[in-house]
Amino acid sequence: MSKSSDIFSTCQVDFEPIGKRIAVAFGVTVLEAAQQAGLSLASACGGVGRCGQCRISILSGSVSAPTAEEQMLLTETDMRNGVRLACQTRVQSHLKVQVPSSSLITTQRLQLSGDSAAFTLDPVVRAYKVEAPSPSLHDSRSDLERLRAALPQKSEQEANADPAVIRQISSLARAHEWHITAFLKNTEIIGVASCGSRPVGVAVDVGTTKIAASLLDLETGEELAVVGALNPQISYGEDVISRLAYALRVSEGGHSLAVMVRDTLNNLLAELTERAGVSRDQVTEVCLVGNTAMTHLFLELPVSQLSRSPYVAATDAAVTLKARDLGLMTAPGAYIHVLPCIRGFIGADHVAMILAAQLDHTDLAAVGIDIGTNTEIVLAQPEGMLTSVSCASGPAFEGAHISDGMRAAAGAIEAVTLTETSVQLKTVENAPPIGLCGSGMIDSVAELHRWGIINSHGRFERQHPRVREGRHGPEFLLVSDDHRNGRRDVVITQQDINQIQLAKGAIRAGLDILLEATNTTSEEVSEVIIAGAFGSFLNIQNILHIGMFPDFPHAHYRQVGNAALTGAKGALISCQARKRAWQIARQTRYLELTTHPQFKRRFALGMLFSGKEYA
Amino acid sequence: MSKSSDIFSTCQVDFEPIGKRIAVAFGVTVLEAAQQAGLSLASACGGVGRCGQCRISILSGSVSAPTAEEQMLLTETDMRNGVRLACQTRVQSHLKVQVPSSSLITTQRLQLSGDSAAFTLDPVVRAYKVEAPSPSLHDSRSDLERLRAALPQKSEQEANADPAVIRQISSLARAHEWHITAFLKNTEIIGVASCGSRPVGVAVDVGTTKIAASLLDLETGEELAVVGALNPQISYGEDVISRLAYALRVSEGGHSLAVMVRDTLNNLLAELTERAGVSRDQVTEVCLVGNTAMTHLFLELPVSQLSRSPYVAATDAAVTLKARDLGLMTAPGAYIHVLPCIRGFIGADHVAMILAAQLDHTDLAAVGIDIGTNTEIVLAQPEGMLTSVSCASGPAFEGAHISDGMRAAAGAIEAVTLTETSVQLKTVENAPPIGLCGSGMIDSVAELHRWGIINSHGRFERQHPRVREGRHGPEFLLVSDDHRNGRRDVVITQQDINQIQLAKGAIRAGLDILLEATNTTSEEVSEVIIAGAFGSFLNIQNILHIGMFPDFPHAHYRQVGNAALTGAKGALISCQARKRAWQIARQTRYLELTTHPQFKRRFALGMLFSGKEYA
Repeated sequence: MSKSSDIFSTCQVDFEPIGKRIAVAFGVTVLEAAQQAGLSLASACGGVGRCGQCRISILSGSVSAPTAEEQMLLTETDMRNGVRLACQTRVQSHLKVQVPSSSLITTQRLQLSGDSAAFTLDPVVRAYKVEAPSPSLHDSRSDLERLRAALPQKSEQEANADPAVIRQISSLARAHEWHITAFLKNTEIIGVASCGSRPVGVAVDVGTTKIAASLLDLETGEELAVVGALNPQISYGEDVISRLAYALRVSEGGHSLAVMVRDTLNNLLAELTERAGVSRDQVTEVCLVGNTAMTHLFLELPVSQLSRSPYVAATDAAVTLKARDLGLMTAPGAYIHVLPCIRGFIGADHVAMILAAQLDHTDLAAVGIDIGTNTEIVLAQPEGMLTSVSCASGPAFEGAHISDGMRAAAGAIEAVTLTETSVQLKTVENAPPIGLCGSGMIDSVAELHRWGIINSHGRFERQHPRVREGRHGPEFLLVSDDHRNGRRDVVITQQDINQIQLAKGAIRAGLDILLEATNTTSEEVSEVIIAGAFGSFLNIQNILHIGMFPDFPHAHYRQVGNAALTGAKGALISCQARKRAWQIARQTRYLELTTHPQFKRRFALGMLFSGKEYA
Repeated sequence: MSKSSDIFSTCQVDFEPIGKRIAVAFGVTVLEAAQQAGLSLASACGGVGRCGQCRISILSGSVSAPTAEEQMLLTETDMRNGVRLACQTRVQSHLKVQVPSSSLITTQRLQLSGDSAAFTLDPVVRAYKVEAPSPSLHDSRSDLERLRAALPQKSEQEANADPAVIRQISSLARAHEWHITAFLKNTEIIGVASCGSRPVGVAVDVGTTKIAASLLDLETGEELAVVGALNPQISYGEDVISRLAYALRVSEGGHSLAVMVRDTLNNLLAELTERAGVSRDQVTEVCLVGNTAMTHLFLELPVSQLSRSPYVAATDAAVTLKARDLGLMTAPGAYIHVLPCIRGFIGADHVAMILAAQLDHTDLAAVGIDIGTNTEIVLAQPEGMLTSVSCASGPAFEGAHISDGMRAAAGAIEAVTLTETSVQLKTVENAPPIGLCGSGMIDSVAELHRWGIINSHGRFERQHPRVREGRHGPEFLLVSDDHRNGRRDVVITQQDINQIQLAKGAIRAGLDILLEATNTTSEEVSEVIIAGAFGSFLNIQNILHIGMFPDFPHAHYRQVGNAALTGAKGALISCQARKRAWQIARQTRYLELTTHPQFKRRFALGMLFSGKEYA
């Protein structure tokens, strides 16, 4: 404690961890000082010592003695640890004040990119400034003990650190003469950095095709950078089943699949930290989601049981381990948290999507859907009731088994409109058309049906100048070959239409069975959340026209983009969100479609086109 | 390599790790030198380079080039590592020779067992039988969830497991059709085994010279096997300071020192499990102690700050981490717990000794002492008051810097009694005498003083038939050379006596200052615990006679053997003991001797002989 100043002096008050400094008159309350500094401390009672919200800790300096109000509202442990109420505590010297995030009104709610999901900032890692004397023969405490004693809060359960972190402490503390910042996760010191460094974290979505990663400031929740890369495993199989097969067939195959994703993640980490201008030592937490196969391969969990019926996950629990154990370039003691999954085909990405869309907190019935090779659908009901299915919709929407199919790369036809005589196309990046991606296929099929060129069973029926006889039956000519540069025709064949029908039939069957199993009518569904990159580019009118979804007359549709990454970000910056993810994974009821007695019939019906039009 | 000596010179050969030195003529074989030094090297072929048993390593010095026989019997790796056959290798300069224990017929005595201290069985790991249904499409829960649901107790905080354990669960459970035993540490599943397997644990004491390990049944606390080995780091320095210097000087030196101890520990683990008839998967906990340098090197903690004043530990806290992270062959999720230390020179072994001797629960004043190169002493007072010092007693008791000094291996004189005319000796394993180990030195010096041959300042005074003028002054002849096998005399010189005085003076100074600092009179001390291998073989009468200890008129003396290992066993089988170890480490007050104003005076006084006799 520094000496008290006299009543005529000005006192400097440092608010930590945000690092805001203000000069105030001797005797003002810490709450008043905070207000002058522009900090909004919670104070429901208006500063009369009754609500107990404006809790702060005095790190150094002299203040007035605790008031009767504080003795009522604070525990003995609080008092011992220097906790005070800002409204009751008067500044009597230069002060250093620690403001816990729970006492702040500002920066509590934040908007994350993608769709608007609000997470309460409640970070898993906190930073503390440390100033300690250097060792001497008269003070030969260990390095860890020295650092520990300089931390603001003390408790029975003292701060600990693992050997990798202790290695960092001993050298870094000496290099900075024991003026450093320590990052703590609960009572564990997970890293140190030069004085004033902020902790940052990384949220990751490992998709079958793409890996997306976002760097967030853990003190403010602000997104500092976001990057993406292709999943390098794609060279070993486009779909999860062929990757699992590779892992099982080839010796060390699983390990090499894991390593290539970890290497990619390290590249993304390097890119993120460079863009945000932070150091690797500041990366103190990683939060990762993905489908069950992706997270199993990433963690090198056993996949033999996951690759054949009944497709069982090795674990559905969240996995928390040291990021360095996976070779990730983070602070030495940083953890990676992989969100829990639900089943072999309902992964942590689905949990994250439910979290991001707040489907665990809905007041009405809502549907969440992520369309892909496997389409996961959740039906949310009030009081956190969640039921999920997984539909084997197949890779048609990704362009597989489609004559002129392709992914949504430059030149892919992503939107199609027919008139009586012409075809209007939109391609990715407005490049010359070279094939059809999923949304283009759905548009094409919907338009063919709308114009009566195919019937409700998907069969070519009406004569049309663009319908011709192809090698395997009738086909519709979307783009004629271009003689100038030798490009092929782009067509949609009878077989292609059948593939789309199989895919959307599976999804429709899943939705219908889900509604039935939960006793929900389509009228009750108030919201339909369409997640995922593919879902973002779909024309809802056309989805409904081809009958991929039932008629939800009162539903509001939201295309939310990469909700899995949004959920991962939430779990990164909020302990509370992480807990919710755990509850979502536990509470979600899984409905097996393949053994459902109604499945075959629903699937056959689901392949028909509805032909309905919506405003 | 030092320069070759010429053929007329005498070469000094140091045999490690037993610490025996001999002067031999240029050109004799290392085997002959060993024989002259009284070492029995294995040599089935009689020294003609045919059996390959007398393998040694040349650590430094010049020797003859490898012979054709050696090129036949040694691999390229052997040659690169300096391995030679003793019978083929001729001495050409001063040499340092490493004799692996496999080449010795007799081996060094290892103190393994400790005094039986009673610990309440309160194991950290528990076993549960599990029977679960196999997965099906109607029950596609994950493997972990299936196992978890079959565990007897359920709680909000559900049992978890890390990826390495999940890997084991998925395969082992299927191999045993979901009838298995699960090992849990709190709520963490750390391994599974076939149904009915018991959990076992290993307690380890890593000494500077020796490593001792004990396997215990964690359900009964019963010791199933105990083994020991030399600490292989000894080739890189006999004392801790030279090992720390090696770790700092050589790139990856610290890592290689760590790996050699971990490898030895794995060998001991294999030996223990084989002897006890248990599998590696049952080894579910390891508890390790050692001095601060040993535990730091083992964990690869930073040692730069530990190797120079003020000799600061990187951490004094207990370290718990996955045994697999150190490459130990245990159950996949097993932890290793390294007990806390107190200071750079007061390690976890000291904490374990206090724990084993229950010095934290004494009703009267008691002293605990472990004599070695560093001698740690604790003074225990009622209500858990503990004060410790570390005395730099030096390596004299281990045979270093003593003309005919050696460690307590076969042939070492361990007890000496003089009469007016004769000398009665006892040697380790009753082998022919070849040198003096620590207890033999203390006996010799005490007897010399008792018979008035040396005075209270340690100077030769009285004429005696066995006192003769040696190369560096007067010396006492303990053993005359034996012409039948060309063995040398064993003498104790004036210099040797001075070395013993320095060693015991440091210990006495430590004890005196400790008593003074704690306001304890020697009359109040009711118990003196002498721990460690060395202490077990000491003649208490002689220790008191030479004044290594003050006069404790009311003390009861207990020589408790390897109390560090006993303490480690306690912490292995009892959570309560582990908590006590933590409290001991926290509560023990450390007294720095080197800066103590009384130290020099006390040290000078401590070198005198008391000459007191006790019943």
